[in-house]
Amino acid sequence: MLWYETEGPERDVFVSTRVRLARNLVDYPFEPRLSEAGAKEIIEKAKSALGEDQGYTCRDLSAAGDNEKLALVEKHLISPEFARKNTPCALIENEEKQVYVMVCEEDHLRIQCIRPGFDPKEAMDAALEADAAIDAHLHIAFDEKLGYLTHCPTNLGTGLRISVMMFLPALTMTGRIKSIQGQLSKIGLTVRGTTGEGSAAKGCLYQFSNCVTQGVTEEEILSNLREAAGSIARAERETRKQLLENNEDALRDRVMRAMGTMRSAYMIDTEELYRLYADVRLGIALGICEGVSYTQLDALLIRCMPATLTSQFGKDLSSTQRDKARAEILRTSMRQAAQEVINSEKKGRIV
Amino acid sequence: MLWYETEGPERDVFVSTRVRLARNLVDYPFEPRLSEAGAKEIIEKAKSALGEDQGYTCRDLSAAGDNEKLALVEKHLISPEFARKNTPCALIENEEKQVYVMVCEEDHLRIQCIRPGFDPKEAMDAALEADAAIDAHLHIAFDEKLGYLTHCPTNLGTGLRISVMMFLPALTMTGRIKSIQGQLSKIGLTVRGTTGEGSAAKGCLYQFSNCVTQGVTEEEILSNLREAAGSIARAERETRKQLLENNEDALRDRVMRAMGTMRSAYMIDTEELYRLYADVRLGIALGICEGVSYTQLDALLIRCMPATLTSQFGKDLSSTQRDKARAEILRTSMRQAAQEVINSEKKGRIV
Repeated sequence: MLWYETEGPERDVFVSTRVRLARNLVDYPFEPRLSEAGAKEIIEKAKSALGEDQGYTCRDLSAAGDNEKLALVEKHLISPEFARKNTPCALIENEEKQVYVMVCEEDHLRIQCIRPGFDPKEAMDAALEADAAIDAHLHIAFDEKLGYLTHCPTNLGTGLRISVMMFLPALTMTGRIKSIQGQLSKIGLTVRGTTGEGSAAKGCLYQFSNCVTQGVTEEEILSNLREAAGSIARAERETRKQLLENNEDALRDRVMRAMGTMRSAYMIDTEELYRLYADVRLGIALGICEGVSYTQLDALLIRCMPATLTSQFGKDLSSTQRDKARAEILRTSMRQAAQEVINSEKKGRIV
Repeated sequence: MLWYETEGPERDVFVSTRVRLARNLVDYPFEPRLSEAGAKEIIEKAKSALGEDQGYTCRDLSAAGDNEKLALVEKHLISPEFARKNTPCALIENEEKQVYVMVCEEDHLRIQCIRPGFDPKEAMDAALEADAAIDAHLHIAFDEKLGYLTHCPTNLGTGLRISVMMFLPALTMTGRIKSIQGQLSKIGLTVRGTTGEGSAAKGCLYQFSNCVTQGVTEEEILSNLREAAGSIARAERETRKQLLENNEDALRDRVMRAMGTMRSAYMIDTEELYRLYADVRLGIALGICEGVSYTQLDALLIRCMPATLTSQFGKDLSSTQRDKARAEILRTSMRQAAQEVINSEKKGRIV
């Protein structure tokens, strides 16, 4: 099962937690100056360090089609930059441990673990376990003073980036997110959109991560992020309560209409999906939407992204065909959820 | 059962047919000069002519509250002008025959029959039957040359007005309704909104009626209206076919979203209800909406009008309370309809 198909802690506010370690091999130049032969050697070495005996499989992304790569981006398993590469590169994955190692991205190795909800410790442990396996087999560039050497100086030191995907509809609706964004640098965080730098915060989803990787320990980074993300989560939950107290009718109407549209529309584009997703997800948090869980909804969002959607049909789809296919998946899934509620005879409450 | 709760012919285009006969008693002045005592006498005389033995009951509207009177307007049983009267007036009704006689409206007696769908002959026969009963008991003002004498000269002669409430979404969407409206006088029709002169065509509903009452026979009026309404109906049906051929995806999406909103929203105001009604009613005609009939939908529209809604709750409702109550009725009714389709295992088709 992929990360988004499983339960996780604090999913009312946290969609996922990702830990990423940047590592490079001493015997090879950094990626921009790396030869094709060198890249292939690194892939082979990584495969030998993270073998099938440890539950890893290797996917040659040079041979993968664009849609397959975009679908991996939509699932947050690889970066958009990695998907655009046309020199040798690979993804070494262990779905059970939720560990995904990009080989020959900006750094030779980018060890990632992504977990549902807020789970930085588990994610960190899994990433470090993979790191140890790599360290045991390969010669990793490390300097006593600078720490792990990386292509970009902003990753020097621990090479560690912890990021959390947070769902912040109440802070977004009230505009309070702006003042939080203004104070992020003080608490050592940066914010990004759903799929990386520069993209907008669709679906009220915000990705926060640590800025500083050097001069601090892994534990300090983790504890700082835990504290900062925790205070944003408290602000979001508090604001949701206030919204419900002050605008219950309007909120309930908005959420129920979004449910209705998901269950009924014949065509839905990605932009509308993000809006509906945010309204319904808030509805789950407020106890308005029964019969659908965070996990189901988060999985639906990913299943309905363009490339993932296309991959389920095994052929190219036009934009209109995608909008119809997306709406059909949403209708079927959301009605099934509603039907299950009716079947379990919870008829008294609004579903 | 009221007219809108029963089936009728050609309901894809026709909501209802109404026949109205204007009659006055010789021994009394016209309504503006009628004394209170005179009005009371006329009511008593009308009651004696249309007695309980013939299935009629008399409702004293002077004693009725505003909400009760507005609810009668919403059901198209009395005119808005009649509801605003504060001198003695009454409604003599026979629900089985769908005959409603307004006593002391603009004329002393306005005999009306309203039937679902396109049914002018049946409506005419029922109105004439009541007219004969009145004629047998009362002295009605009739001039050999002018015909029936009425307060307003535009009703002189037959005193007959036949009107049909038509549902014309395709002609509305394509704007063709305008050219039809421009040619109406040529075919002897006038057009009004849903509840009378001056109101807008909400819900794509248009009320057409004959302009001329004098110098023609009842049969000529009926046959002319039948022909004119028939040609508008043909234009509407033809345009629906074209719309479906050229815009099937967009139409299907629009209709299904309207169904979803009716099944899901928490608050719906009257204006939105008219929009949703028009989309869903068109959906029934196009075979997109299963599980709901014209009769159910037309009855829902009336049940959800402000005064009728209020009368179901037996107390005054605020505007917000009405919007919630309206949405609840729509949710419950439309979900029940959908559930019945699921239960009858027609799961393959979109409901």
